[in-house]
Amino acid sequence: MNNNEAVCGIDIGGTNTTIGLVKANGQIVLKKNIFTTGHLTAQEYVSALAEVVRDLIKESGYSVTGIGIGAPNGNFYNGTIEFAPNLPWKGVIPFVELMISHFPDTEVVLTNDANAAAWGEKVYGSARIENDFIMITLGTGVGSGIVVAGKMVYGHDGFAGEIGHTIVDPNGRLCGCGRRGCLETYTSASGIVKTAIELMESRKLTSILDNISPDKLSAELIAKAALQGDTIALEVFDKTAYYLAWKLADAVAHTSPSVIYIFGGVAKAGDILMLPLRKYFNDFLLQIYKNKVQLRLSSLPDNDAAILGAAALVQQ
Amino acid sequence: MNNNEAVCGIDIGGTNTTIGLVKANGQIVLKKNIFTTGHLTAQEYVSALAEVVRDLIKESGYSVTGIGIGAPNGNFYNGTIEFAPNLPWKGVIPFVELMISHFPDTEVVLTNDANAAAWGEKVYGSARIENDFIMITLGTGVGSGIVVAGKMVYGHDGFAGEIGHTIVDPNGRLCGCGRRGCLETYTSASGIVKTAIELMESRKLTSILDNISPDKLSAELIAKAALQGDTIALEVFDKTAYYLAWKLADAVAHTSPSVIYIFGGVAKAGDILMLPLRKYFNDFLLQIYKNKVQLRLSSLPDNDAAILGAAALVQQ
Repeated sequence: MNNNEAVCGIDIGGTNTTIGLVKANGQIVLKKNIFTTGHLTAQEYVSALAEVVRDLIKESGYSVTGIGIGAPNGNFYNGTIEFAPNLPWKGVIPFVELMISHFPDTEVVLTNDANAAAWGEKVYGSARIENDFIMITLGTGVGSGIVVAGKMVYGHDGFAGEIGHTIVDPNGRLCGCGRRGCLETYTSASGIVKTAIELMESRKLTSILDNISPDKLSAELIAKAALQGDTIALEVFDKTAYYLAWKLADAVAHTSPSVIYIFGGVAKAGDILMLPLRKYFNDFLLQIYKNKVQLRLSSLPDNDAAILGAAALVQQ
Repeated sequence: MNNNEAVCGIDIGGTNTTIGLVKANGQIVLKKNIFTTGHLTAQEYVSALAEVVRDLIKESGYSVTGIGIGAPNGNFYNGTIEFAPNLPWKGVIPFVELMISHFPDTEVVLTNDANAAAWGEKVYGSARIENDFIMITLGTGVGSGIVVAGKMVYGHDGFAGEIGHTIVDPNGRLCGCGRRGCLETYTSASGIVKTAIELMESRKLTSILDNISPDKLSAELIAKAALQGDTIALEVFDKTAYYLAWKLADAVAHTSPSVIYIFGGVAKAGDILMLPLRKYFNDFLLQIYKNKVQLRLSSLPDNDAAILGAAALVQQ
């Protein structure tokens, strides 16, 4: 890219959409937000989005060489967003096609948000030198992006990399996907809260968390309590780490990555999560993999990671 | 390859080694066996192996354009066989190096036996048109080979694809790998026998299997009893299918293959295994994958599959 060229990264979330112009070195030139909700149709939403992109180009004086989009249930092959439970539009939305109608001469690439985060780590983050790695996003849901031999794994249908929906216990917690016992039900932000409520009910120990009403309880508050040495809160993260370690060890037995990056709201718990995670992970790993696979927090800056990931898609 | 050219495929098993010359169309020109055991060192074994290869070349009148080797714990990157529990040589054996000392002008490629089987399906079998698929081998152990975007997945260290050592139950059966609850402990030939013995002890039903002494019981005999409608034997395969289906659904959530091929001694049970396997697999699959992923028996001929797989490695 030339000095006045940038890539546009678009991160579509359930409530907000963030749009940013990103230089080749990962510097964000300018960014804006719009609501994802409140548009009558996907067409109208994309029109609003296109207007913001044009505004960013005008205000920055940059030209845009490509547009990368990260969205829940985004399909890289088809350029579609398919049956995304947390987005306002139902069914299959030909998203890239709609976007190209506004920018006919620009490359437009779309994939799911976790794949975008993984590719952001590869292009702008600490995975630059890694060819085999996995990105796990721990937030409202649990997502993943898998990179093998330097390439994003999309699978035969564009939907590879759903480690959050591998099953811990077929008779376990009901998942948003309709099945039971998915990793997501134990290690997402709400899964962690659920574990805390269960433990508080069964353990009969006093806890800092007793003073918080159940509807206010959050993974963040539980992490804070754990930092203060609260027994229940520490046990919550111990259990969370146990389940995550188990399924990450399983993931290693599939694609044998050199690093697994952890990202998202829940990852902000830092050592409270990472210390028990590393311990259990080492226990769960098959002998041939032991001491070869690093567990690291993502190096992408929290606020801009999603835009960087989306922008990175253009540089595959 | 020309008409008088062939590839040499070598399958190294715990007891026997099979060596064959394979034409480009998958036809086996000639094959021989030697014992894997009974050689003082790996060097002496490789010398014996090289002699057989020379014999095959002389007897057939073919020239050999490459040598492919499938072996337990074979590492594609290093050309080594590392800490293989069922082979006579301990530690790390520089196998490709030893072989090249006998055939300095020939390409020599090595990987583990399950990867070889997967690649055999790709080059000579029904996966020719598939770019994303998984091969599961059910025998003494449970192995797997994963193909993504038309390429074998080796991972950062050459040891990717150990689905047999993903964990069903961290407190479950002790595995040969030293951990507990690996898929292999439930769905290998000996895992199936163990399930039968457990069920016979707990169910107190009469069974065809009652007449077989426990040390003679085999997955094959249990499959025969199931074919005759034996309740216990049918339940054994139902349980086996359940665990396998669960972990194959997990595997889909990693690399999203279009087909999963089942191969090996246990696969000979055919519909006795495949019917419950397809049912549970469909139950376990995440919605976005349902009705997209086929479960098929491998199309490779039983006796020659390992040689074909090894030979196929040269054609990566």
